[in-house]
Amino acid sequence: MSQEPFSAVDVIATKRDGGTLSDAAVDWVVDAYTRGVVAEEQMAALAMAILLRGMSIPETLRWTEAMLASGRRLELGDVGAPTVDKHSTGGVGDKITLPLAPLVAACGAAVPQLSGRGLGHTGGTLDKLETIPGFTTTLDTAAIRAQLRSVGAVVCAAGQDLAPADRKLYALRDVTATVESVPLIASSIMSKKLAEGTSALVLDVKVGSGAFMKDLETATRLAQTMVDIGTGAGVATVALLTDMDTPLGRTAGNALEVAESVEVLAGGGPPDVVALTVALAEQMLSLVGRDGEDPAAALADGRAMDRWRALVAAQGGDPDAALPAAVHRDVVTATRTGVVTRLDAYAVGVAAWRLGAGRSRKEDPVSAGAGVVWHVRPGEQVASGSPLFTLHADEPARFAAARAALVDAVSVAAVGPGGTARPLVLGRVG
Amino acid sequence: MSQEPFSAVDVIATKRDGGTLSDAAVDWVVDAYTRGVVAEEQMAALAMAILLRGMSIPETLRWTEAMLASGRRLELGDVGAPTVDKHSTGGVGDKITLPLAPLVAACGAAVPQLSGRGLGHTGGTLDKLETIPGFTTTLDTAAIRAQLRSVGAVVCAAGQDLAPADRKLYALRDVTATVESVPLIASSIMSKKLAEGTSALVLDVKVGSGAFMKDLETATRLAQTMVDIGTGAGVATVALLTDMDTPLGRTAGNALEVAESVEVLAGGGPPDVVALTVALAEQMLSLVGRDGEDPAAALADGRAMDRWRALVAAQGGDPDAALPAAVHRDVVTATRTGVVTRLDAYAVGVAAWRLGAGRSRKEDPVSAGAGVVWHVRPGEQVASGSPLFTLHADEPARFAAARAALVDAVSVAAVGPGGTARPLVLGRVG
Repeated sequence: MSQEPFSAVDVIATKRDGGTLSDAAVDWVVDAYTRGVVAEEQMAALAMAILLRGMSIPETLRWTEAMLASGRRLELGDVGAPTVDKHSTGGVGDKITLPLAPLVAACGAAVPQLSGRGLGHTGGTLDKLETIPGFTTTLDTAAIRAQLRSVGAVVCAAGQDLAPADRKLYALRDVTATVESVPLIASSIMSKKLAEGTSALVLDVKVGSGAFMKDLETATRLAQTMVDIGTGAGVATVALLTDMDTPLGRTAGNALEVAESVEVLAGGGPPDVVALTVALAEQMLSLVGRDGEDPAAALADGRAMDRWRALVAAQGGDPDAALPAAVHRDVVTATRTGVVTRLDAYAVGVAAWRLGAGRSRKEDPVSAGAGVVWHVRPGEQVASGSPLFTLHADEPARFAAARAALVDAVSVAAVGPGGTARPLVLGRVG
Repeated sequence: MSQEPFSAVDVIATKRDGGTLSDAAVDWVVDAYTRGVVAEEQMAALAMAILLRGMSIPETLRWTEAMLASGRRLELGDVGAPTVDKHSTGGVGDKITLPLAPLVAACGAAVPQLSGRGLGHTGGTLDKLETIPGFTTTLDTAAIRAQLRSVGAVVCAAGQDLAPADRKLYALRDVTATVESVPLIASSIMSKKLAEGTSALVLDVKVGSGAFMKDLETATRLAQTMVDIGTGAGVATVALLTDMDTPLGRTAGNALEVAESVEVLAGGGPPDVVALTVALAEQMLSLVGRDGEDPAAALADGRAMDRWRALVAAQGGDPDAALPAAVHRDVVTATRTGVVTRLDAYAVGVAAWRLGAGRSRKEDPVSAGAGVVWHVRPGEQVASGSPLFTLHADEPARFAAARAALVDAVSVAAVGPGGTARPLVLGRVG
C-alpha cells in the first residue's frame, strides 16, 4: 500500500472552510483523482466547495498546471512558424474558427486548433467540419505537426491523452451541478489549450443570452482568470469579450455554417462574421509579432481561401464537394411590420438544436443539414408576412418544437431604436 | 426505464444557489439516493451545498422524515408504559446511559435505547456493555418489545433496516468532509431516534473540547434544530446542553466505565455522573408525565440496581461476573504541587483511544480492559509526584502514545481559581 502525502478529507475541509489549497495539495488532489485514489464523490464535494468558496488566481493556475501535467503536451516548437490559437467559450452561429484558422495561416502564423463538439444549444467546430465529405478530425501528433508545416493550420479533435484529469472532472461536474464555477471553467479551458502546445492564445469570451456567461461582469472575471492563467503558464494570452445576445451571421447548423464560412473566405459573407474574424486575426497576429499583416486583405484577395482549401484537402476532405442539405424546410413569417430590435441568440440556438443540429448527450448523433437560417437581424426592416426564419430538418416532426422555441425570438418595433446597437466587441482583457 | 420526477442536477443547483428544496424534492432525492438513482457523487455535491448554504427547519424536518421513511419504524405502542429515550451527542467518559436506562425504568417509564459504537476519541455504549460476559446487543423486534414489558429498558444495536438512507449518507459524509453540518447532523441523529418508535426523547448535547461541538452557540443551534425536528415529528423532545471540557466521572474505557456505572447504581460513584444521570432522568420522566418520581431515591435504595441486573440478565449477561481487565498498567504522576484548574476531555479521550479502548475505523476491534483512570478533577489538590492518571492497556507498547496525548491534559495552579467552576448543565432547550 503506497503512502499518500495528503488526506482527501483534509483537502476538501480546507476549501470548505474558505482556506487556500497549497501547491502540493493541488498537485496531489488532481493527480490522485486521475489515478482513482481520490474518489468521484470526494472530488464532487471538493468541486462544490470550490464553486461556493472560490479559488485564488495562483490556486487556479496551479490547478490548471496540475491538470495539464496529468497528460501529454504537444511539442510544436519546430513547425516553422510562431504558433497561435483561438478559443471561443461557445455561442450560436459561431463558425469563426472556420475562416479564422486559414486566414491567420495565410498571414504567416501556425494555428494548432484542437477543438470540441457541440453540446446543448451551442454548436461544435468538429461537427461542422465533419459535414464536408471525406473530412477527418482524428489526427495523430505527427500528422498535426506535418500539417502545421505544410498548411499552417489544423483543426482536429484533442487526443484522449491531453489533460485526462480535465476530461474526467468535466464529466463529473456535468452531473453534480458544479459546472458554473469561474475557476473550474477557466482551468478546464486553459488546461486543454496549454496541452495543445501553442505559444500564444486569443480567447473569445461570449456574453449574452446565447452564451454560457449571461452578464459582462462574470464574463470579464472569466476572461481575466484565463488571461492570468495563460500568462502565468508562459503563453501570451489576450481575451476579447464579444456579444452573444444576437447570433453570429445568418445561419446556425453544421453544414449551413460551413457554407456561410466559405462565403466569408470568398470575400463576402455577413459583415459581423467578417468583422469578428478580422478582429480576432489581428489579436492573434499581434501576439506573435505580425502586426504588419492585413487580414482583411488576405480575406479579400483569396489567400485565406487557398489555405482553407489546403486545410480541407490535408484532412481528407473535398473542398469542391456539395455539402449535405436537410430534406425538409419550413418558413416562419413575421406577424407585424417594423424594425427588428432584437434577435435572441438562445432561442435560435435551441431551435437549431431541436431541429437536429445539436445534441443533448455527448453520445448523440447530429444532423449535418439541420439548422436555422434567419432573414433579418437587429436594425433591419421587416414586413408582416415576410420570412423571418427558414428551418431545415431531416424529419418534419421536428418543426413544431423549433417553432415553439422561436415564438419570442424576434422583437419588432414600429420605429427603430434611437440609440446605437450593442457593439460586437465589448471589451479586451490582457 | 422509469421516469423520475426530478433531476438530481436541478436539485443540487437549487441548494447550491441558496434556494429552499421543496418537500417533494427532498422526498425524491433521499429516496432516489437510497435506491441508487442519485449517485454518490451527486449526493456528495448536495451535502457540500447543504453544509455551506444550510437548510431551514422545515427542510431539515422533511429531510429527517424522508430518511425515516427509507426504512422501518419500531411500533412500541403496546409495551405497557410510556416510552422515553435519551441520546448523547458523544463525549469522553460518558457512561450515563448505563445507569440512566435502568433508573428511568425503575421510575415507571420504558426506555427503548438503540445505541451505537464508539469512533475516534468518544466511546460507544454497545462497546461498553459487550464487556459484560455473555451480554448481547443484537435483539430482534419481538425481543425488544418483550424486554420493554418485562424489564422496562433495553439497550441494543439498531437494525440495518432502520433509516438505511442515513446509514448510506453517513458513510458518504465521513469521506467527503461533509460531517460538520448542523442540519445533516440533526437529521442523522433524529432519523435514527424517530425510527426507534419512542414517544419522548431527551437529548444530551455535549459542549467542549471532548465533544463534537466545541462552542455553546453551535451546540445550542444543534439542540434547537433537533428539538424542532422531534416536536415537528410528534415526539416530545427536550435537550440539555452539558459540559464536555472535563471528562465525566473518573474513567474512560469500556469495562472501566461499566464498573463505574455499577458504583453509581449501587448508590455511590462520582458526583458528576450521579448528578447528570439524575438530571436527565428528571427530564425524561417529566416528558412522560412522571414528575412525581424521585430518581435520586431510586438510585439510593437499590431499585435502579435491580433493573440493571434484570436488563443485563435479559440480554444474556451475567451481572455478577468479573469484568475483563487490561494486562498492563502505567502511572502518570504530577510534576508540580497545587490545585488542578483543568482536565482536558479531548486529551483523555485520545489517550484512551490510543490505549485500545476506541477505534479509528468502524471495522476495528476494541479492547475491553483498556482505558484511563484519572485521580484528580478540577478544583482538587495535587502534590508533585502523586498519580494523575493510571493507564490500562493490553500491550505496553501503547503507553508512550497515550502519555504523549496527556502531556498538556492537566493544568495545575499554585492557588485555585477565584471563580466558580463551569456548571455541568449549561442550558436547556425545548
